[in-house]
Amino acid sequence: MIDAYLARCRERLQPQLKRLFQAPLPSLERLYSAMDYSVSNGGKRVRPLLAYASCEALGGSMEQADAAASAVELIHAYSLVHDDLPAMDDDDLRRGQPTCHIAFDEATAILAGDALQALAFELLSDAARNPLSAELRLQMTLELARAAGPAGMVGGQAIDLAAVGHKLNQAALEQMHRHKTGALIVASVRLGALASTQADSRALAALTRYAEAIGLAFQVQDDILDIESDTATLGKQQGADIARDKPTYPALLGLDAAKAYARELEAQALATLADFDQRAEPLRALARYIVSRQH
Amino acid sequence: MIDAYLARCRERLQPQLKRLFQAPLPSLERLYSAMDYSVSNGGKRVRPLLAYASCEALGGSMEQADAAASAVELIHAYSLVHDDLPAMDDDDLRRGQPTCHIAFDEATAILAGDALQALAFELLSDAARNPLSAELRLQMTLELARAAGPAGMVGGQAIDLAAVGHKLNQAALEQMHRHKTGALIVASVRLGALASTQADSRALAALTRYAEAIGLAFQVQDDILDIESDTATLGKQQGADIARDKPTYPALLGLDAAKAYARELEAQALATLADFDQRAEPLRALARYIVSRQH
Repeated sequence: MIDAYLARCRERLQPQLKRLFQAPLPSLERLYSAMDYSVSNGGKRVRPLLAYASCEALGGSMEQADAAASAVELIHAYSLVHDDLPAMDDDDLRRGQPTCHIAFDEATAILAGDALQALAFELLSDAARNPLSAELRLQMTLELARAAGPAGMVGGQAIDLAAVGHKLNQAALEQMHRHKTGALIVASVRLGALASTQADSRALAALTRYAEAIGLAFQVQDDILDIESDTATLGKQQGADIARDKPTYPALLGLDAAKAYARELEAQALATLADFDQRAEPLRALARYIVSRQH
Repeated sequence: MIDAYLARCRERLQPQLKRLFQAPLPSLERLYSAMDYSVSNGGKRVRPLLAYASCEALGGSMEQADAAASAVELIHAYSLVHDDLPAMDDDDLRRGQPTCHIAFDEATAILAGDALQALAFELLSDAARNPLSAELRLQMTLELARAAGPAGMVGGQAIDLAAVGHKLNQAALEQMHRHKTGALIVASVRLGALASTQADSRALAALTRYAEAIGLAFQVQDDILDIESDTATLGKQQGADIARDKPTYPALLGLDAAKAYARELEAQALATLADFDQRAEPLRALARYIVSRQH
């Protein structure tokens, strides 16, 4: 079920993203190509799925969540481009393909990331692209700005940088993940919920707790896969996190306890959706998928 | 007159910017310090001045333009931090101080720039910080996103990168400047005008033409100063643009013709303000200042 829903979201999103990368001038073609390359590199599109599934869980249409789905993916893509830079994680490959600064050059990768971020806010605030009320567009813009900024995703990257080579306890590790990946996952779910125009504060609170649980589960499972999966399945070097002395859940809790924790987070995520009907099935399927996936 | 008005804008802005950089967590202190450092490095604050002066020219108060003034300065500051990176212009000094990646490190500078951009959109869209109507906040957010993004400022940086070592004609040089610096200068003026709540389409069009003219004048004068000023007055190495084989107006037109062109742009800027009363005096003074400044 989740594979079909993921495919449906990807097929819906792909042409919308493509349309964003038509260079308005010949002198801008290289920049737009680098943006396109960075967004089109075959990601699973988990964040757009969350926006679409959250909107549908509250009775909205996928169309209502189009701008939200694109915007959260643009922010995610920009963060990967900057994360891969030599001064950051210095990765040459992502999902088996050359990273943006390898395929283009470092300056272009910095600018492509910067441009993708601006474009996300343009999409959300533009009535022509996000045909919701002004109040909703503003709330979506504000929530995404907070989630992406220094008290959200970028803050998490800064905490992560500072943590390499340090022993973190579980609370510190979770603080890092809550910022680095959790904030944007929560924003994906909340923006989709807002786009439905049906989100009351109770539904928003439940969906926020759901997103917090799956965001953490995703990280725990990533850490487990880093140990258990082989390089070919994972698309990045196996054991890469440990080799860099990055803090991980298996290192902190032991592998078995980390697996149990992932299952517990899955159960928490499902429990927050108890009051939702069958329209929340894709959200439930995603919670199960996150902890059972092998790559 | 312009010095007093610049000082007034700076004094108004400084504590507002400072308040943005209180780290919410100890683990985020380095990131927030780098953001603070990058914004507090003694710039002239021309873009905030434009927002304030444009708002006042239409009868608004400075207070109404506070969020606009901060937001355009955050975007400007982030662009300088990324522009100075080793992979871009590779500058160690800005205004006589170590650049962000020298004072901190390259990864922190990349993240500080990213965070400053997100913060600009947060400020504009947040009713608690930008107490204008939802429609106006949205329009301001959209205009800033367009001006900062790939079809605006970031696009200009990409055109600039591609232009180094190439012979450009005047049209190509102006296309680069219109994007790289012009778009944000136009946005500064337009956001200030919108913040006044008094901007009709005729006033907005006149202020836009004013901003286009002073934006270009600023670049022409910069190119002239790069040749004529000594390093101490300029705060950067004299002749730096020529040494890098960057295209400049004096190289293209000759020094005398470049000076005449700067004066012509000043006259154009003043002409667009013909229908404005004495409340537009700071905008007029700025147009005169841009072309007569020595650094």
